[in-house]
Amino acid sequence: MDSLGVIGILGSGSWATALAKIILGTQTRINWFVRRSEKIKAFQQTGHNPDYLTSVHFDKKRICFFSDSDLNAFFRASDTVVLVTPSPFIKTYLKRLRSSSLKDKLIINAIKGIVPDENVLISDYLEHEMEIPRHMIGAVAGPCHAEEVAKNRLSYLTVGCFDKAKAELFAQALRTDFTFCAVSNDVVGIEYASVLKNVYAIAAGICNGLQYGDNFQSVLMSNAISEMNRFVNTVHLVDRDITDSVYLGDLLVTAYSQYSRNRTFGNMIGKGYSVKAAQMEMEMIAEGYYGAKCVREVNKRFRVNMPIMDTVYEILYEKRVPNEAITALTRHFK
Amino acid sequence: MDSLGVIGILGSGSWATALAKIILGTQTRINWFVRRSEKIKAFQQTGHNPDYLTSVHFDKKRICFFSDSDLNAFFRASDTVVLVTPSPFIKTYLKRLRSSSLKDKLIINAIKGIVPDENVLISDYLEHEMEIPRHMIGAVAGPCHAEEVAKNRLSYLTVGCFDKAKAELFAQALRTDFTFCAVSNDVVGIEYASVLKNVYAIAAGICNGLQYGDNFQSVLMSNAISEMNRFVNTVHLVDRDITDSVYLGDLLVTAYSQYSRNRTFGNMIGKGYSVKAAQMEMEMIAEGYYGAKCVREVNKRFRVNMPIMDTVYEILYEKRVPNEAITALTRHFK
Repeated sequence: MDSLGVIGILGSGSWATALAKIILGTQTRINWFVRRSEKIKAFQQTGHNPDYLTSVHFDKKRICFFSDSDLNAFFRASDTVVLVTPSPFIKTYLKRLRSSSLKDKLIINAIKGIVPDENVLISDYLEHEMEIPRHMIGAVAGPCHAEEVAKNRLSYLTVGCFDKAKAELFAQALRTDFTFCAVSNDVVGIEYASVLKNVYAIAAGICNGLQYGDNFQSVLMSNAISEMNRFVNTVHLVDRDITDSVYLGDLLVTAYSQYSRNRTFGNMIGKGYSVKAAQMEMEMIAEGYYGAKCVREVNKRFRVNMPIMDTVYEILYEKRVPNEAITALTRHFK
Repeated sequence: MDSLGVIGILGSGSWATALAKIILGTQTRINWFVRRSEKIKAFQQTGHNPDYLTSVHFDKKRICFFSDSDLNAFFRASDTVVLVTPSPFIKTYLKRLRSSSLKDKLIINAIKGIVPDENVLISDYLEHEMEIPRHMIGAVAGPCHAEEVAKNRLSYLTVGCFDKAKAELFAQALRTDFTFCAVSNDVVGIEYASVLKNVYAIAAGICNGLQYGDNFQSVLMSNAISEMNRFVNTVHLVDRDITDSVYLGDLLVTAYSQYSRNRTFGNMIGKGYSVKAAQMEMEMIAEGYYGAKCVREVNKRFRVNMPIMDTVYEILYEKRVPNEAITALTRHFK
């Protein structure tokens, strides 16, 4: 594989739509898997995603849509596939694939989460359950609100592949007038950073809900990036600088954003909503809710000191009282 | 010296007032140098600083005020002196001191700036110009908006002294119900971090004024903390973790704050104000304006790669066009 071939995008949420916009800035055409065929129809009629980033107009002639029944066909027609569904759905899709559909594909994970129930990274699942060779697996992340991509505001991404030459290949598809893209071989670190930042955004929301101020928020972020560094260095020791934008920047843009769903969810918890009430009010479940459980499970093996992650877990899953839990947490900080 | 003795505070701005409040939480009394005697009178009549943090009420019986003519008496009456004036005034005060007034005093720098014209850190100036022994010099900083101290919102400080035992001694005076305090021996790193964060807050403001978004802001912060790390490791190599709250946290709370004067100043520059117009409009000069010049001078010796600091310097002092300068800067980032 010395070219990307045709790129396929699996998923049609806001981040999928942003990635489609970026990739169509460099590629003549893409395949796009959009589950519901009514949504594809609306897309084709209007030229934009009916649900997300509606201001972004697409040239329909350059997109080949695939709906739910065409999942295997979508993979077969694509040489590189970007996974960008919500994490709870990815396993169902992957389980429906025939192994022939996956043969020789470069699979790039853009999901900011883990495989539910399995408590493993998407890249782990691809390698060990789907039997995709390591050198054909990658991940993409970065501090990148989809809404700002819609507005052409300058954003930075990082592509990690176990085979760094492939990272460079895919990065070329992401470099436009308004997006820069770095490369790395740290697939595992990038994926865990994407999971943990959502857990820390929940923590930021809880503290905000409890009326902690900006001084404390910055201390929380300092301790969070330090905790993330301890964890990823223990789980997967490579030469990485945790202040790179794919780690620190992505944490900051998520945890400081008033629009982050994870932060909003945490804020409600801090204000006294039960987990169930907050989830019902939001009509969705924040990714960090699953992320905390996953990392907690994984960390039983590694036993890294993770007071922030543990505190979020205990508040969400063990009914620990937020006020008391955060007060105890503050004593761990410096 | 095995106790702090009486603590004196030199300065009466918002940060000085916040420190007075904190220190009076642990000490029975303090000395407080407030230049203008009318201000002292107003203070004594109302029980609060007439100009800053007016919601904070002080027990006047526990404060001994000194006005401009009592500068030497203020130092003689204090065993530990906290310097917390705006940086442009500190040299004038220090020059008026008799050396007997400084004898055996622990001097803690809380000024977030450098000595103007000299382009040296306050601690350097104290050691080399004022001939204060190194082991009697320290610095205090942290992510700590004074306004949040006024509201008893939890904040974290760090005291650095060349003699770490003295840092611990002074830290004890800063530990209250709403303030934690860590200790360190990294006086130089803490002081440079305090200077640089204001330069980076100007950069954040300029980018905001130029309509860069949150994605880019987080990339700017990631690259700024990395640049700060390169610089302080070159100038003063000690065992430090740049993600500690005194470095990273202080940068974040300053650069993300809508209230930061440095960010506001940068924002006006980004929107097209000249430096002079922005300074006139704000009726003051942002500390980072001096900081950029200082670090630029110091870095002529060390030649650390500092694209953000250089860009701010060139915009402020060499009339480089912000839009073009920031566009060029973005290519350095990852």
